[in-house]
Amino acid sequence: MIYDLYKAMFYLEDIREILRKNVPFGISNEKDEKEFNDLLNKTVQTLEGLSSEPACDSGNNIKYISDRIEIRTREEEFLNIDPIQAGGRLTPEARKVLISYGDGYSVCDNCFKPFRLDYIKKPPVQEFVSELSEFLNMDDVRVVRGARNGFQIVANALLNKNDVALISSLSHYTLALSIESMGAIWKEIPAGKNNIVTAEETAKKIETVKEETGRLPRLVAIDHIDYNYGNEHDVYGISKVCRDYDIPFLYNGAYTVGIMPVDGKKIGADFIVGSGHKSMASPAPTGVLATTDDFKDVVFGTTKLKGDVTGRKFGIKEPYLLGCTVMGAPLVAMIASFPVVKERVKDWDDEVKKSNFFISEFLKIKGDKVSSELPRRHTLTKVDTSESFDRIAQKHKRRGFFLYDELNARKITGLFPGASRGFKLNTYGLNWDQIKYLADSFRDIAERYGLDVE
Amino acid sequence: MIYDLYKAMFYLEDIREILRKNVPFGISNEKDEKEFNDLLNKTVQTLEGLSSEPACDSGNNIKYISDRIEIRTREEEFLNIDPIQAGGRLTPEARKVLISYGDGYSVCDNCFKPFRLDYIKKPPVQEFVSELSEFLNMDDVRVVRGARNGFQIVANALLNKNDVALISSLSHYTLALSIESMGAIWKEIPAGKNNIVTAEETAKKIETVKEETGRLPRLVAIDHIDYNYGNEHDVYGISKVCRDYDIPFLYNGAYTVGIMPVDGKKIGADFIVGSGHKSMASPAPTGVLATTDDFKDVVFGTTKLKGDVTGRKFGIKEPYLLGCTVMGAPLVAMIASFPVVKERVKDWDDEVKKSNFFISEFLKIKGDKVSSELPRRHTLTKVDTSESFDRIAQKHKRRGFFLYDELNARKITGLFPGASRGFKLNTYGLNWDQIKYLADSFRDIAERYGLDVE
Repeated sequence: MIYDLYKAMFYLEDIREILRKNVPFGISNEKDEKEFNDLLNKTVQTLEGLSSEPACDSGNNIKYISDRIEIRTREEEFLNIDPIQAGGRLTPEARKVLISYGDGYSVCDNCFKPFRLDYIKKPPVQEFVSELSEFLNMDDVRVVRGARNGFQIVANALLNKNDVALISSLSHYTLALSIESMGAIWKEIPAGKNNIVTAEETAKKIETVKEETGRLPRLVAIDHIDYNYGNEHDVYGISKVCRDYDIPFLYNGAYTVGIMPVDGKKIGADFIVGSGHKSMASPAPTGVLATTDDFKDVVFGTTKLKGDVTGRKFGIKEPYLLGCTVMGAPLVAMIASFPVVKERVKDWDDEVKKSNFFISEFLKIKGDKVSSELPRRHTLTKVDTSESFDRIAQKHKRRGFFLYDELNARKITGLFPGASRGFKLNTYGLNWDQIKYLADSFRDIAERYGLDVE
Repeated sequence: MIYDLYKAMFYLEDIREILRKNVPFGISNEKDEKEFNDLLNKTVQTLEGLSSEPACDSGNNIKYISDRIEIRTREEEFLNIDPIQAGGRLTPEARKVLISYGDGYSVCDNCFKPFRLDYIKKPPVQEFVSELSEFLNMDDVRVVRGARNGFQIVANALLNKNDVALISSLSHYTLALSIESMGAIWKEIPAGKNNIVTAEETAKKIETVKEETGRLPRLVAIDHIDYNYGNEHDVYGISKVCRDYDIPFLYNGAYTVGIMPVDGKKIGADFIVGSGHKSMASPAPTGVLATTDDFKDVVFGTTKLKGDVTGRKFGIKEPYLLGCTVMGAPLVAMIASFPVVKERVKDWDDEVKKSNFFISEFLKIKGDKVSSELPRRHTLTKVDTSESFDRIAQKHKRRGFFLYDELNARKITGLFPGASRGFKLNTYGLNWDQIKYLADSFRDIAERYGLDVE
């Protein structure tokens, strides 16, 4: 059915193109009139044959959108447990916005003085930005080009060459790159054996840096939930340590902002960074950077220079942001998803419950282990199957791919193909039926290959 | 008709959502089955009533996509001569891609070793990047988060604090901000009275900086076509001067790459920057940064640091790019438009012809002047109507808005509302019928208000 649905939607885009070509006259030539009618007939025919059976398409499937680009049906055909994709699935509202606002500078139709993206009222960018600030309980916020661009803006504003910034031994690589890009140096707070970054280790590391370099680190940036284990790190304690040392603290909420409640003031963060495409049901590349009154003029400071020939200045444009950030469709889609995002964070406890339920079922398969902390406090989990599924893989003709194949046959996707020793998965957004199906599927596969199951 | 068309497309998105919610079971409950059938019926009904008359909708128009976000119909209802929007209108292929690839990390479904965006084969990112390099006749290229991000990457790689970089007195503000963001200083090469930046003035300015600071500028960055007049500046001559002084030269092709032929080697550019949403029929925020073998390791250099605790390194990730750049829908849409973009640059001469035709007609209205160079070498033009339409505005009860109103009534949009002393417009992409209609419309308005017309 999804292929037929796409077919119909694509016909409608072709109809729309006829309209665009003939603007403002209307469809006035015979050729376009005929094409319009043909397309319309084909659409209606396709829809009349549309079956509510997902696997059932008319047969004349189109596989490609255009030259070399395949239609993507991952979310319509599969239960997707990909570790990074769960929170970035669009809402239907965001998808409708993409249809309407796709064109390059679509968001700039009504850009008036003072000519800055976050002042645009139609679509309601200004309102969104102000609600976002409230949502995060921070004083000011901007939409940025992905979480990594948020890190970069802070690094750019705060770090000089050879300054030291602390991240953790479990930090995402983009935090490290942002610091490196400014010629500064990142050092790691060790997460230790239990893979949890603590306030104590943070204080120790700060002291070590002070001893070694004679200066305090200029920034501490910690992922609340890390990308590898999905463990929760002590951002509350770490923020307190940073306050004691008077070191700015950046909270990386790529895996939190948009799926669980995040209260910047309660955390005590100087900067909150979130990811639109990771956790806010938004297209890439989108993110948010929020800050406090203390730091807003540092990171969102406006341009200071003026032209030596013309004397021109650029008003309220913000250099570290390079003026307007995410113009166009991804921003408006983010706005469209926001009402849903604001509501869904309230369901976080249930999401964690589902995550723990799945894991408890998964652990009934003999040999299965969990590398992440237990009980789970997040929906992203790393599991160790070296004593279970990998044992099968070693004897299977498809090696590690057997697990991918088996899941695929059960319409489950998102595992790294070939991974059988261990993998990451994310149950975010699955309902209880889907969670149970997921657990049952692993059990089925285990039983099929003779693994003991409780 | 466009509202009905949107209505149908949105119903189909709602159907798609039912499918997504029920994955992988299929629509198995009565409620969803009923909703599916209702939506399907409504879609077919809407389509059956779809008229090929653009202004004719069923009457039950939906005005909002979702809470506060209005449907955008600018390109379907109006002849759009907005100065910045012309080259960023999506192709139907790109629009179809947005439907299919909207979800956050959609482009990462098949990301395998070495785990970098520009190595992804499905969708064909790798192939695209390589074709893009050929298209620009440069040695290497990356997709970046808008032209401004391209400027920033070069500024980040090349400039130290207090270094001087030259731009022109007509440069876009984002060039200035990129330089300022690195703590460097931008100075202007004067365009002079005729508003053309020359090699001679560039050499002079280089000498002045050398005299004043004892050092050469570290970068010269010039817009081939400026944002204000749409004038062509002597990038060939300027690039030669830069070579003579051994100063890196950045060619800003925001108004050229994707609409006219650009040959990096012929220009002699060290860097070519282009804008996806301005000139490559792509959604924002997208752009390209191309460079030569001499500079590719400077701007696209891979990460050098490693973890002091873990010893981890991040392989081939590029710090100035922050690893992967434009993940997701905007990139795939850019790829989808590329075959069209490659073809359309061949029509540039005709686009310029149409621009000149319109301007020659426009100048038949007594008092109309053109602030840009003549004959036009681009489709973006600044006109001066202080002695024509502004005279009307001064006596009109709607003041300067009268012109906007009159054009609006003729289904022409893109002028800054209220502007009657002068404005910018862009005829890119209009066909001859539309160009003639545009010229006739201005003539009509002039005649209506008693201006003399040749």
